[in-house]
Amino acid sequence: MTAGRFESSVYADRLAAAAAATASAGLAALIITPGYDLRYLVGSRAQTFERLTALVVPADGTPTIVLPRLELAALRESAVSDLGVAVVDWVDGEDPYGLVATALGGGPVATAVTDAMPALHLLPLTERLGALPVLATEVMRELRMVKGPAEIDALRKAGAAIDRVHARLPELLVPGRTEAEVAADIDAAIVAEGHTEAAFIIVGSGPHGADPHHEQSDRELRAGDIVVVDIGGPYEPGYNSDCTRTYSIGEPDPEVAQQYSVLLAAQRAAVAAVRPGMRAEQIDAAARDVLAEAGLAEYFVHRTGHGIGLSVHEEPYIVAGNELPLRAGMVFSVEPGIYFPGKWGARIEDIVVVTETGVEPLNARPHELIVVPVAG
Amino acid sequence: MTAGRFESSVYADRLAAAAAATASAGLAALIITPGYDLRYLVGSRAQTFERLTALVVPADGTPTIVLPRLELAALRESAVSDLGVAVVDWVDGEDPYGLVATALGGGPVATAVTDAMPALHLLPLTERLGALPVLATEVMRELRMVKGPAEIDALRKAGAAIDRVHARLPELLVPGRTEAEVAADIDAAIVAEGHTEAAFIIVGSGPHGADPHHEQSDRELRAGDIVVVDIGGPYEPGYNSDCTRTYSIGEPDPEVAQQYSVLLAAQRAAVAAVRPGMRAEQIDAAARDVLAEAGLAEYFVHRTGHGIGLSVHEEPYIVAGNELPLRAGMVFSVEPGIYFPGKWGARIEDIVVVTETGVEPLNARPHELIVVPVAG
Repeated sequence: MTAGRFESSVYADRLAAAAAATASAGLAALIITPGYDLRYLVGSRAQTFERLTALVVPADGTPTIVLPRLELAALRESAVSDLGVAVVDWVDGEDPYGLVATALGGGPVATAVTDAMPALHLLPLTERLGALPVLATEVMRELRMVKGPAEIDALRKAGAAIDRVHARLPELLVPGRTEAEVAADIDAAIVAEGHTEAAFIIVGSGPHGADPHHEQSDRELRAGDIVVVDIGGPYEPGYNSDCTRTYSIGEPDPEVAQQYSVLLAAQRAAVAAVRPGMRAEQIDAAARDVLAEAGLAEYFVHRTGHGIGLSVHEEPYIVAGNELPLRAGMVFSVEPGIYFPGKWGARIEDIVVVTETGVEPLNARPHELIVVPVAG
Repeated sequence: MTAGRFESSVYADRLAAAAAATASAGLAALIITPGYDLRYLVGSRAQTFERLTALVVPADGTPTIVLPRLELAALRESAVSDLGVAVVDWVDGEDPYGLVATALGGGPVATAVTDAMPALHLLPLTERLGALPVLATEVMRELRMVKGPAEIDALRKAGAAIDRVHARLPELLVPGRTEAEVAADIDAAIVAEGHTEAAFIIVGSGPHGADPHHEQSDRELRAGDIVVVDIGGPYEPGYNSDCTRTYSIGEPDPEVAQQYSVLLAAQRAAVAAVRPGMRAEQIDAAARDVLAEAGLAEYFVHRTGHGIGLSVHEEPYIVAGNELPLRAGMVFSVEPGIYFPGKWGARIEDIVVVTETGVEPLNARPHELIVVPVAG
């Protein structure tokens, strides 16, 4: 692996697949500005906004990247120079949209643009092309949703790294410390264990655990708290971890322990249901059914999971109504939770890979309610 | 000031000005998705991408914000509830683009969209509105380019904070330390002095100082180095600092000192030229002329400055060809530099405010080449 990206052959395969998907969709070309799609296709981390950078992937022929001359040096860190991509640079005063049109052979053609392309570029590009593009959402989703071996390896390393952070949690969850203090330590641990940075840190103690959108606060932990810890971040070359465990400061109330055991069974059932050919909604139902049987369905107020890769939330979404059949290489979270407003909440989350025959979880820390002993 | 934003009256004035500018431009409404424009207009820091959040500001009548129900709680931190803005929330399965069209009274109307609106929303919105929007770039630029008293006060505090960081630099620039080590200390100091975070840190030592795009490296500082330090970041409620000073580790070579003195005169001349009615290009020329007279024009390879506010680079740009007349309330950098490839470089940068009668610099650290004594 080159710093910050995979071997160039990975991107060569992706570009070829993107061209084939573009042809299948009846489009002449994809036009990709900076964002996850560009990073996926050529390993570029460009973040230019004002000045146009655009990769043009034709259904047939050589891709072209149009970019400001100032960005040529940064482009060398991507795989572009190994991929036979034509590089067209421009300087202030030139019309970069005309350069994109030229790369498309002039004349109106059917193009699809990346979801992230800002209006600042999309509107002048539309004018220059003489035709309104469509969204490349579906083409790119098909490509990005099924991970290759290099990506799965990266996600596996990210999973192991976030497991090492969870292993440190019991010593951080000390009564009297605030959620924010614990979060600051987790932030440092996420980086210390090899992530580039923390992407999100939820420390929801006591009643805060009942709000799935809570992040952290100045609430002090106390004996008897149930604490939801949901954390993750990008790991080189940019693939994310995301793992939730729930902790009990001191021995839990027997009713809490009993309800948690149902959640644990629900999460296990959903993971066990994962294999090629199952529909995404069936994984959601597998978790929901276990909770419903115990009368807890109404306390599970969100979807069961989301895909993960270069972005923390992407396809496939594990949610009622999603009839997408799972395929080997898909990677997503399985994270049912139960939330009792004003009281407590719990969530258990693993990232899992769909394998040829079943499932490979990427997180290995114990799933049980983890009891943190209270001193004295 | 409420945490993270100004008093609501500031936003009320901005919304009224935006409506007036929309009417003047012959448009029916602005449509603003998350980004600096939304933050400017209502103090919202929303960053939703997949699910549409859109503020509709009609030329005449009540603004409406369309947003996912999940985001209602976060919206309370903005000024929206004090501004008489109609709030329309939606849940998965509903058509948020239809809600925007309804807020516009149905039927095709002339709208302008924020530069940052992603294709993901712009294309379905265009379809639903039945008309291609134009860019709101000019309308928003006119509003954002002239800062009000609250904004200037925020920028003044940001300037004082980054000055305190520069005051610490002499003790950080120790021979044997790497640029990256110095940058890590600067990062911590930027936060310690009150910024939310560091936005950029350039430490260009020796030959690296000759590349205006250099950031930092593992090069070790040594006696005799000239070091360019260009740093800044956002200060609550989000206005940025940006200040460059140049340091000499040990006494500089006499030729370096002489050339630096020309740069200093150029920067002073450009700052002294700032007053209402001057054209942006004249400020650029004021710096360039001093360097040209000393035969150094060819070593000044970039524009003299850029506007600053919620974003680090915005209008007005202080560059040849920009005939924009300066007005009281405009805030921008004045940052000429000289770069001798493979040898050394220097830059001096202050943020300045155009006042009714002249100029107020927001950075007060000495502008001279700052000599850091070498031990022994």
